[in-house]
Amino acid sequence: MAQNYKFTLSYLGTKYHGWQRQLNAVTIQATLEDTLSRLTGEKVHLVGCGRTDAGVHARNYVANGMITTSIPEEKLPLALNVNLPEDIVVHKAEIVPDDFHASFSCVEKEYTFSILNARTRDPFLADRAAYIPAQLDFDKMVEASQHFVGEHDFSSMRTLGSNVKTTVREIYYCELSKEGDLIKMRVAANGFLYNMVRTIAGTLVFVGLGKIKPDEITDILLSCDRKRAGPVMEACGLCMTGVKY
Amino acid sequence: MAQNYKFTLSYLGTKYHGWQRQLNAVTIQATLEDTLSRLTGEKVHLVGCGRTDAGVHARNYVANGMITTSIPEEKLPLALNVNLPEDIVVHKAEIVPDDFHASFSCVEKEYTFSILNARTRDPFLADRAAYIPAQLDFDKMVEASQHFVGEHDFSSMRTLGSNVKTTVREIYYCELSKEGDLIKMRVAANGFLYNMVRTIAGTLVFVGLGKIKPDEITDILLSCDRKRAGPVMEACGLCMTGVKY
Repeated sequence: MAQNYKFTLSYLGTKYHGWQRQLNAVTIQATLEDTLSRLTGEKVHLVGCGRTDAGVHARNYVANGMITTSIPEEKLPLALNVNLPEDIVVHKAEIVPDDFHASFSCVEKEYTFSILNARTRDPFLADRAAYIPAQLDFDKMVEASQHFVGEHDFSSMRTLGSNVKTTVREIYYCELSKEGDLIKMRVAANGFLYNMVRTIAGTLVFVGLGKIKPDEITDILLSCDRKRAGPVMEACGLCMTGVKY
Repeated sequence: MAQNYKFTLSYLGTKYHGWQRQLNAVTIQATLEDTLSRLTGEKVHLVGCGRTDAGVHARNYVANGMITTSIPEEKLPLALNVNLPEDIVVHKAEIVPDDFHASFSCVEKEYTFSILNARTRDPFLADRAAYIPAQLDFDKMVEASQHFVGEHDFSSMRTLGSNVKTTVREIYYCELSKEGDLIKMRVAANGFLYNMVRTIAGTLVFVGLGKIKPDEITDILLSCDRKRAGPVMEACGLCMTGVKY
C-alpha cells in the first residue's frame, strides 16, 4: 500500500537547474524522483517545500510523496544515497499522515545568504558565497536589516514573474553575522516572493557600500518601487536552511 | 631585473594531481607557473613549500620564484586571479630577499584533517572531509592525540617511497575539535614524512572506533611498525593550513 513519505535532504545546487523538474535540464526533483522510481519500481512524484533556483543550495530541505516499498523507513536514506550523486544526500525518511504536504503544510522557512567580503576570492567558497571585494560597512548592514523584520508589502524586493495573491509577507528575523571575511544573513518568514532573499541581500550590500542609507529601507518598502532596492545577488550565495511545519 | 617573489595562495585540490608539475596531469604548480609565464612573457619556475598530493587542499600555501615584471607587487594577485581557474587564488605577492626558499626556509608547517562523523554524508563536505559513519569516541581520540606531540621517530606513521635522512620529526601540537558532526585535527610540526598526517588521522579514527587504545600510541611509535598504525585516510580530508618562516 502506498504511504506518504517525508524526506529530509541536503544538496549542493551548483550543477542543477534548481529543484523543479524541467524538460532537458538536470534538476534535484528529477534526480530524486528517478532514483526513488528505480528503487520502488513505480513512478514517483514528489512535492518540494519550495522551488529553489539554479545554483541555489539547501540544507534539510523537505519533500514528500506517495510510495510503496518494503524497505523500512530508517533504511531508506542509505538505499537512496548509494544511488544518488554525492551532491544530493537524503538524511531521513519518515511515514507521515496522508494530508502532509511539503509545500502547503509549511509555516516558516529560513534562508541563509553568504557574502565573501575580502580583497581576494576564496576557492573554498567559489560556488557557496557571493563575492564583494569592496569593503562593506557591516554595522550599517546590521542596522538596515532590522527594518525588514515584521509584516510588510515586499513588492520592492521581488522579481516579477510568478502570480501571487498578495505581496505581503512577515519576516520573523533577519540576522547578520560575520566570521572572518564571511558575512551571513539568516532570514526567516512565513513565505518569500520570487528572488526576495537575493534582493534583500543585494539591498543590504548597497547599504554596506553606502549607496542606500539604513533608515531608507522603510521608505523603499512603502514605495513598492523595485528600482529603489539593490540588485538580485548571485544564486550561489543562497541556501535554504530550514522549514517548519 | 628578475626578483624573488613570494606568493601566498589557496587552492581546492579536488581537480588537481597535487602541487608538483607532472607530465600529462594538471597540477597546481603547472597551472600557476603557466599563468605567470603568460603574464611575464618568460619561463617561470616556482618552488613550493611542500608537495601536496592529488585531492589535497591548501590555505595560505607559499611558493616563490624569480620573476621579471613591471606589474607592482600589490597588483600582481589580481592580475593572476583573473587568469587562474576559480579553485586557485593568489592572495598576496611580495618581493623577498634572493635567499628566501619556500621549502628550505620553512621552519613549521600546519595541516588540518577533517572527518565527517554522521549517519549520512554531507554534500557540502563531499570533497572536503573524510567520511566515517560509525560513531567515533571523540574523548578517546583527544586523549590519543596528545601522545603524538613531541619529538618521535614517526616510521610507523608514514608510507615508504621518498628518501629522507631521518624519520624523526617534532610535533608542536595536535589539537582535535568538534563542531556538530565535523571533527578537525590541527597538527603542526617542523616537518612531515610522506602520508604522515593522513596516517595519524587514520590511527586516531581507529582509536575512535575502539580498535586501538589511546595509551597504545607511544608503543606504536616506539615499535616503528607501520602495520600497527591505522590506515591512510582519504586525501580530500587534508588541507595544508599554515607555513612559518
